[in-house]
Amino acid sequence: MSVYLSEFLGTMVLILLGDGVVAGVLLKGSKSKDAGWLVITVAWGLAVLMGIYVASSSGAHMNPALTIALAAIGKFSWALVPGYILAQMLGAFCGAVLVYLHYFPHWRGTEDAGIKLGVFCTSPAVRSTPSNFIAEVIGTFMLVFGVLVIGTNTMVAGFGPFAVALLVTSIGLSLGGPTGYAINPARDLGPRIAHALLPIPGKGHSDWSYAAIPIVGPVVGALLGAFIYRAVYG
Amino acid sequence: MSVYLSEFLGTMVLILLGDGVVAGVLLKGSKSKDAGWLVITVAWGLAVLMGIYVASSSGAHMNPALTIALAAIGKFSWALVPGYILAQMLGAFCGAVLVYLHYFPHWRGTEDAGIKLGVFCTSPAVRSTPSNFIAEVIGTFMLVFGVLVIGTNTMVAGFGPFAVALLVTSIGLSLGGPTGYAINPARDLGPRIAHALLPIPGKGHSDWSYAAIPIVGPVVGALLGAFIYRAVYG
Amino acid sequence: MSVYLSEFLGTMVLILLGDGVVAGVLLKGSKSKDAGWLVITVAWGLAVLMGIYVASSSGAHMNPALTIALAAIGKFSWALVPGYILAQMLGAFCGAVLVYLHYFPHWRGTEDAGIKLGVFCTSPAVRSTPSNFIAEVIGTFMLVFGVLVIGTNTMVAGFGPFAVALLVTSIGLSLGGPTGYAINPARDLGPRIAHALLPIPGKGHSDWSYAAIPIVGPVVGALLGAFIYRAVYG
Amino acid sequence: MSVYLSEFLGTMVLILLGDGVVAGVLLKGSKSKDAGWLVITVAWGLAVLMGIYVASSSGAHMNPALTIALAAIGKFSWALVPGYILAQMLGAFCGAVLVYLHYFPHWRGTEDAGIKLGVFCTSPAVRSTPSNFIAEVIGTFMLVFGVLVIGTNTMVAGFGPFAVALLVTSIGLSLGGPTGYAINPARDLGPRIAHALLPIPGKGHSDWSYAAIPIVGPVVGALLGAFIYRAVYG
Repeated sequence: MSVYLSEFLGTMVLILLGDGVVAGVLLKGSKSKDAGWLVITVAWGLAVLMGIYVASSSGAHMNPALTIALAAIGKFSWALVPGYILAQMLGAFCGAVLVYLHYFPHWRGTEDAGIKLGVFCTSPAVRSTPSNFIAEVIGTFMLVFGVLVIGTNTMVAGFGPFAVALLVTSIGLSLGGPTGYAINPARDLGPRIAHALLPIPGKGHSDWSYAAIPIVGPVVGALLGAFIYRAVYG
Repeated sequence: MSVYLSEFLGTMVLILLGDGVVAGVLLKGSKSKDAGWLVITVAWGLAVLMGIYVASSSGAHMNPALTIALAAIGKFSWALVPGYILAQMLGAFCGAVLVYLHYFPHWRGTEDAGIKLGVFCTSPAVRSTPSNFIAEVIGTFMLVFGVLVIGTNTMVAGFGPFAVALLVTSIGLSLGGPTGYAINPARDLGPRIAHALLPIPGKGHSDWSYAAIPIVGPVVGALLGAFIYRAVYG
Repeated sequence: MSVYLSEFLGTMVLILLGDGVVAGVLLKGSKSKDAGWLVITVAWGLAVLMGIYVASSSGAHMNPALTIALAAIGKFSWALVPGYILAQMLGAFCGAVLVYLHYFPHWRGTEDAGIKLGVFCTSPAVRSTPSNFIAEVIGTFMLVFGVLVIGTNTMVAGFGPFAVALLVTSIGLSLGGPTGYAINPARDLGPRIAHALLPIPGKGHSDWSYAAIPIVGPVVGALLGAFIYRAVYG
Repeated sequence: MSVYLSEFLGTMVLILLGDGVVAGVLLKGSKSKDAGWLVITVAWGLAVLMGIYVASSSGAHMNPALTIALAAIGKFSWALVPGYILAQMLGAFCGAVLVYLHYFPHWRGTEDAGIKLGVFCTSPAVRSTPSNFIAEVIGTFMLVFGVLVIGTNTMVAGFGPFAVALLVTSIGLSLGGPTGYAINPARDLGPRIAHALLPIPGKGHSDWSYAAIPIVGPVVGALLGAFIYRAVYG
């Protein structure tokens, strides 16, 4: 299997299970309606875990910010970066389409267009470009710094994928409050494009004015995490 | 111990602990009444984990859809399939009888006949044959694809049974909203038969009009998961 | 360290952390007041995990029903049984005294005497001797059968103590609804004696009429679990 | 990397993720507002886990009480104690500053000054010097006794850091009710100083009258835990 197919499948599973839990918690009539923040953060952690198992042959990046940061510190080939990012974006898009299909009867029942958008991509609790940017930087710094520390920590052994899943749940629980923790450009942009293209009943705009923050913030945070990691543990 | 006894015991434990949590959350007067979606999905994950430990000598399928899918891709003998399925169905039936006994004083106190049925088998949030079918296909695709990926992933090692339990919790959290995630014909049909036969006070019909979906959907989803797995990772 | 001291300390930690969570969820003014069923069941699972670490040198029974059942199938010496049970009872008593001290300012603020008793020992949701007895039998059957299956399952390796903790959480989530899952005579009787002796402000009776069920039920269930285990896996 | 830098970074991550979850649950407008006690206690456990991965090269104390207790039983050099404590305090302070930045737009929206202080440091449910002191002693006794038991328990192997995280979640769930479980002088004092110095809109006093309890209590409890451990497990 090519590494690109691996990244595509891993990210598709990540978004199917990740956006899936948001759909279940937000959409009207779902059995998991209003199931709470712990449900969302645990399910995103498990979505990452399953994505890691699916995409292990390509290193399971599933996140353009992580791919770029690994390349920036010399742990990944720049030649593979464009293909990885394209595969991740396509995987995230297809995962969002599967969520759309899976929850098909629930879109019509849900009235609020903002809630429907919230199934696909993130939005800030309080809209403030500098603060939202900083929150995405800190969250993704923690993600990439944590992934690198876990990856090189000999204490972890075969426990690694589970530790990364716990890291993502941890970031969601502790740092998700201000922006909903995109911390991954593919996780946000891929489903946002799906939202724009899919024939969702009663949908509104795709909030493109916010779309740059969960792209630029995570890339900056990931670079910070990778360079500080290299400087300290190098 | 024969593999059939192993599948019988594993599936019995799966349904005792799985339908048990639904009984605890739904039945009037139970100490875990209304304990929430995370309780249900975590408990089903743990029910699978305990079933795996009990039925490890037979591979712990506990699910006819998985058994059929493994046979279809040549990873399991077709000759054993009928006996496995029979053992799984009997185990699920007996597990449901144990739940009936365990929560005995709570059936009379619960008035809604639909809630009593809900302890035994699944029902859709929005009744729509094509959508409910698709939801069971996607859920079981994720289950079988995930089980196969975990099973062949060398990163996982002894962590495997726990990873499968987390997969089931993940599917429940993220994909359980539309149909309550049967993703297993034995899990749904065995307890439905128990509901039809047991002298439950004030019970209603067993909703046989829906019973085919959580059988056909999971089998189709499992075959899809197994063939895509073989095509990609094979 | 003697095995008796080990059982004493392990059971003390089990009850400190186990009755501790019930105190936190039930007593007025506690920061974890009304934190829910998942909090209680996860915390009891973790209480068992910590007890296992503390008492590993004695096999970490921490439960007279398990001790008796292991002796009955020849996996434990009858000569040690009386000392083990005494140590477990004393440990449970002392753990309950520590919970009393830890939550000292919260007893006076809590008005309901039944709630105060509920911190120490179990009571049935619906009072019915045969049904409550059966529920304790089924719960403890699952505990002992599960512990034996996990203990001999080669898939589990170093994961064993965690798997046992998950088993206890699973039993709580799925089978705790009718009686609050004592499944351990020491867990119920030791703290009940502490409740009778401690100068708790505004306490009521210690519900001695129910005290036999969480002793006899667990012993019968444990014997069933052990003998069925030996017959099937033996 | 020096051990001091390691302790600094580990404690910074501990407080970023630990005080972070409290901010998310308490501050107005946060997406995780009112997410509950399980969210707080699980997130603190994961904060410890990530801190352990970050600070593994220095033993990941991240807690002056643990550092002092290890030195007192001869498992750590007294010469390193002052540097460790200083690094832990600075790390906790910087972690709190990051939480302040991460949740920047949410401070102005939150009216209650006590809630803002609660993001940074602990306060008792019922104010009573002897009872609050005892609660911190018992909680930290459990922490240090548990860490030592886990560390020397051969059953645990590579599972160790996760077991310590579960221990911290367990203490939070079961013993956090009376005082909010500081169980670590750096966790409480470092962020309290940050609260006193940071320009938080509408903040109140830093409750210095309580500040000594979560310092002295944890040190006494840690010493108790370490000496009892040494006496029993030798």
